[in-house]
Amino acid sequence: MSVTMPRGFRASGVTAGLKASGKPDVALVVNDGPSDVAAAVFTTNRCKANPVLWSEQVVAGGRAKAVVLNSGGANCYTGPQGFQTTHASAELVAAKLGIGAIDVVVCSTGLIGEQLERGKLTTGIEQAVATLSDTGGQDAAEAIMTTDTRSKQAVREASGWSVGGMAKGAGMLAPALATMLVVVTTDAAVDAATADRALRAATRVTFDRLDSDGCMSTNDTVLLMCSGASGVTPDEAEFTAAVTDVCHDLAQQLLGDAEGAEHDIAIEVVNAATEDDAVEVGRAIARSNLFKTAVYGKDPNWGRILASVGTTSAAFEPTALDVAFNGVWVCRGGEPGESRELVDLNDRAVTVTVDLKAGDEKATIWTNDLTHAYVHENSAYST
Amino acid sequence: MSVTMPRGFRASGVTAGLKASGKPDVALVVNDGPSDVAAAVFTTNRCKANPVLWSEQVVAGGRAKAVVLNSGGANCYTGPQGFQTTHASAELVAAKLGIGAIDVVVCSTGLIGEQLERGKLTTGIEQAVATLSDTGGQDAAEAIMTTDTRSKQAVREASGWSVGGMAKGAGMLAPALATMLVVVTTDAAVDAATADRALRAATRVTFDRLDSDGCMSTNDTVLLMCSGASGVTPDEAEFTAAVTDVCHDLAQQLLGDAEGAEHDIAIEVVNAATEDDAVEVGRAIARSNLFKTAVYGKDPNWGRILASVGTTSAAFEPTALDVAFNGVWVCRGGEPGESRELVDLNDRAVTVTVDLKAGDEKATIWTNDLTHAYVHENSAYST
Repeated sequence: MSVTMPRGFRASGVTAGLKASGKPDVALVVNDGPSDVAAAVFTTNRCKANPVLWSEQVVAGGRAKAVVLNSGGANCYTGPQGFQTTHASAELVAAKLGIGAIDVVVCSTGLIGEQLERGKLTTGIEQAVATLSDTGGQDAAEAIMTTDTRSKQAVREASGWSVGGMAKGAGMLAPALATMLVVVTTDAAVDAATADRALRAATRVTFDRLDSDGCMSTNDTVLLMCSGASGVTPDEAEFTAAVTDVCHDLAQQLLGDAEGAEHDIAIEVVNAATEDDAVEVGRAIARSNLFKTAVYGKDPNWGRILASVGTTSAAFEPTALDVAFNGVWVCRGGEPGESRELVDLNDRAVTVTVDLKAGDEKATIWTNDLTHAYVHENSAYST
Repeated sequence: MSVTMPRGFRASGVTAGLKASGKPDVALVVNDGPSDVAAAVFTTNRCKANPVLWSEQVVAGGRAKAVVLNSGGANCYTGPQGFQTTHASAELVAAKLGIGAIDVVVCSTGLIGEQLERGKLTTGIEQAVATLSDTGGQDAAEAIMTTDTRSKQAVREASGWSVGGMAKGAGMLAPALATMLVVVTTDAAVDAATADRALRAATRVTFDRLDSDGCMSTNDTVLLMCSGASGVTPDEAEFTAAVTDVCHDLAQQLLGDAEGAEHDIAIEVVNAATEDDAVEVGRAIARSNLFKTAVYGKDPNWGRILASVGTTSAAFEPTALDVAFNGVWVCRGGEPGESRELVDLNDRAVTVTVDLKAGDEKATIWTNDLTHAYVHENSAYST
């Protein structure tokens, strides 16, 4: 169900032939209203893909009536010709649906630096419009997959309204070409400002804290569309919580399907002076290849964690730091603590806790280990 | 020869038994003067190893008469007991040589979070003092190796004076436990301020621009000792150039021996608005696992380069960027340029050129590819 669970939405997923594999590669999600409120967050990469450049303009007004997504090509670094392809896609969807091109968000994912085949895309979009259905969420979720091994969907039901979502990729800062694309729908009746605040609050503590391999995609997009079809206007806190729940659920699914990963790692930084400090420390650890290879080798190597903490500007004293793997405090006060032998890293889920002893704030960053399979997938993908 | 080529220096390298392999693991370099001028740069990691905490104090006065180095243990995150081991090492060297402990720099490398065996270290130091020789440079260079596959040495001769150096590790920001330790000697007669300026100028454009895997060691030390034994006081520019030459030579040897690497990559960033911009862009590319795995796969993936450039704050326009692999401009103006098929990445040496079209400044950052062997070595090292 996912994006078509909330009332007022139709979706579809079809095979346009953009993917060499012959799997579905064009998805469409349409908001039939009565409201067309929308909000979005995009990659902060300064070298943005053409669909991002276009979609930023669409959503600037706080409204969108449809989103067309394709896998099989990122349409990134493809110049004016690529931008025209994005624009033509929006125009075609608009013409078929009787709306304006400026109402249509466009998302693309796949190889970068190559033009999308306009003819195939056109055929795919026509087919996607023709097969729109209020049970099309599953098909749409499958059509946006690239290196994903499974589709990602989530729903939350509230009193008379609901939130649904689909995602592909492996993190806001994603492996390989696994650009993260997320579409979240709701039939709650909210205004554009509320939608924007709720989406930013949700992504800040979910997708923004997923740092699978430290590489920021050029195409990342998280779109929230609100149909208002339930007629219910929830309390903003309740609405934000529901959107955050769906985003968290999807983020954890992305983490669990990251390219080549064998461990899902939660890095909890506690007793930080500020939340920013906690995030900075967590991110520094998540970006250490030495830490990530150690977890792959099931080695509770706390020294590599302290070495990462030491590169940050967070408030802490080196001789006060405690570090735990799965609850075993292998480092106490910057020295060896409990025995490393007590740590079991055989399960996929690993929790690292870093106690900065500098305040009361905390944050969790999620990442994966660095494995042979990661190297293989990312050295072989485009060749 | 290396560190013992300049007059006024003796060195040795012995086996103390700190390494399980039974290979040499304690090195000593002594400056017999007449001058004891010294300068050093240390890791900027805030979680520093005990020998770094000690040696910073030694060199603060611009003087040092000896440096004792051990492999087989980093003496890092070992608390007060570890600091006492460092201090005891300096005191023992000082007592045997008839100098002060505060004249003795200490460097350690190896596993972190474990105490060094004091008895073995003591025996090793006594043996190292007993075997000091003015031809001991080679032995010293071998005794500081950890995961290095070969010793690194360099010399430069000038008119009546010379510079020699030895190094171990794989970069200022080094793989695994490959802390970078460098000792540079000269018989030029220079004052402490000149030595400090020359060393900082040299490391800024050599070791500081080596970014093999983005992980900063806790023990990195580059030490310059000046005996004045030649009686020659060179022009400062000439002296700085010679020290820079030796540092560059050693840095390239470190790059060529980085753990598991199959490619040595020079990232040349040209036409930047500032040198800082060029360094920021080069470093961002050097830290992209996607770029590094692509080079391993011999894939001239310029899209991953632009995605890295886009994460920086450097001055540039995305649609103006040019990128070349080994001289083939595969990206022109942010779009596909010459055919990727023209690029040959079979040689170990790879040059990536990024033209920012934003000014006249430039910088080169050196890095390695990310390989299966890197993952293997760093997931298996301590287990």
